[in-house]
Amino acid sequence: MIVRGTGECVGTFTDASVEQEAVVRARARLAAPSPESGPEQVRSAELFCEVATPAPELIVFGAGHDAAPVAQLAWAVGFAVTIVDVRQAFLTAERFPGATLVCAHFSQFAEHVNLSAGSFVLIMNHHVERDEECLRFSLESRAAYIGVLGPRSRYDKLLTGLADRGYVPASSRLASVRSPVGLALGAETPQEVAVSILSEVLAIRRGFAGGFLSGSVASLHRPDDKRLLAPS
Amino acid sequence: MIVRGTGECVGTFTDASVEQEAVVRARARLAAPSPESGPEQVRSAELFCEVATPAPELIVFGAGHDAAPVAQLAWAVGFAVTIVDVRQAFLTAERFPGATLVCAHFSQFAEHVNLSAGSFVLIMNHHVERDEECLRFSLESRAAYIGVLGPRSRYDKLLTGLADRGYVPASSRLASVRSPVGLALGAETPQEVAVSILSEVLAIRRGFAGGFLSGSVASLHRPDDKRLLAPS
Repeated sequence: MIVRGTGECVGTFTDASVEQEAVVRARARLAAPSPESGPEQVRSAELFCEVATPAPELIVFGAGHDAAPVAQLAWAVGFAVTIVDVRQAFLTAERFPGATLVCAHFSQFAEHVNLSAGSFVLIMNHHVERDEECLRFSLESRAAYIGVLGPRSRYDKLLTGLADRGYVPASSRLASVRSPVGLALGAETPQEVAVSILSEVLAIRRGFAGGFLSGSVASLHRPDDKRLLAPS
Repeated sequence: MIVRGTGECVGTFTDASVEQEAVVRARARLAAPSPESGPEQVRSAELFCEVATPAPELIVFGAGHDAAPVAQLAWAVGFAVTIVDVRQAFLTAERFPGATLVCAHFSQFAEHVNLSAGSFVLIMNHHVERDEECLRFSLESRAAYIGVLGPRSRYDKLLTGLADRGYVPASSRLASVRSPVGLALGAETPQEVAVSILSEVLAIRRGFAGGFLSGSVASLHRPDDKRLLAPS
């Protein structure tokens, strides 16, 4: 049988009590931070839960030269990548292999760009007005991660610009914003910045804090060392 | 004129006192952790120091399936990558584009593999004896970074194996070893592990600690926030 993330079930078991418990177990697996497939024993029935989750989504606003290495690395790591820019000429498959390319002005985002609770968003237009509107759009969505390129002062400026035009986001939404984006690697080139950003995206996705592993005796895959986990 | 990293100079200035000071300035630039080009004013003379440094080196021992994404990412980021394995069939340009491929048994390393103080080394043979001998070879070199794949307990086992055969490394050299290798990203796939490892290599190279940048108000390029710097 199939148990969807929405809770909905398709198909049945011959034993209704096994079915009921199997659905509970399947929902528990789906609710885990990193859902995994595995066997389940429900009384005398031996079951196997195969978890099928969609690829994680990275939506990049801004198709500049520094977006290309981020998109390529994210794609190599297994993300479904979408690039959004108003400049058609920048949106080419050569620069963004494997990515979905969306040519849209910010006034058209509601129609063309879909951000869900599982979306990772990067804002890197190198253009104040576009960055402001992308930030507003992302804050109004449920996106769990909103990375804003540039120093913290630039992010503050974007918020001030939005406030001047009457938009003040809920503080709960501001907690999703990462600025400066990325891990502290001393990254300088666009390729290095891409590694810094993707490292942070992976760490946040799995609930890790991104520091050095060296010296830790915890299991690498199921850490029992809480220092490895990001404070929530 | 040219001022080499060895201190040696080639060429002259017409004004000997300007030359003397120019050489001092050039050597100071070369001695910086991340040498950079830039203008220099020596009395009335306007000079420009152009720094040319070789690409950083990553030497990977072990050409298994998990080495390929590490090598590809390192190459994309600008490293000169060398892959060392005794198994010729694993050393192909398709798997390791841009890399120097060295087919050698560990008894031949002294002849075929050159590790310098600037070398970043990864040990990932998935083979205890080979890992032990690669670790010994790396510890006997001046390599600044020796990353050992796997949990800490495996690294301890390698050291015990070497000790059983009479090799006990200097403790100063053990400080160069990173185990578990990489940053705490919760990496699971080979591609994710590659990002975790490259993040650490970049952070160590530039003297950063790899944690989250978000919230920091320091300059991203020349940090004045010491939290960003790795304790030395």
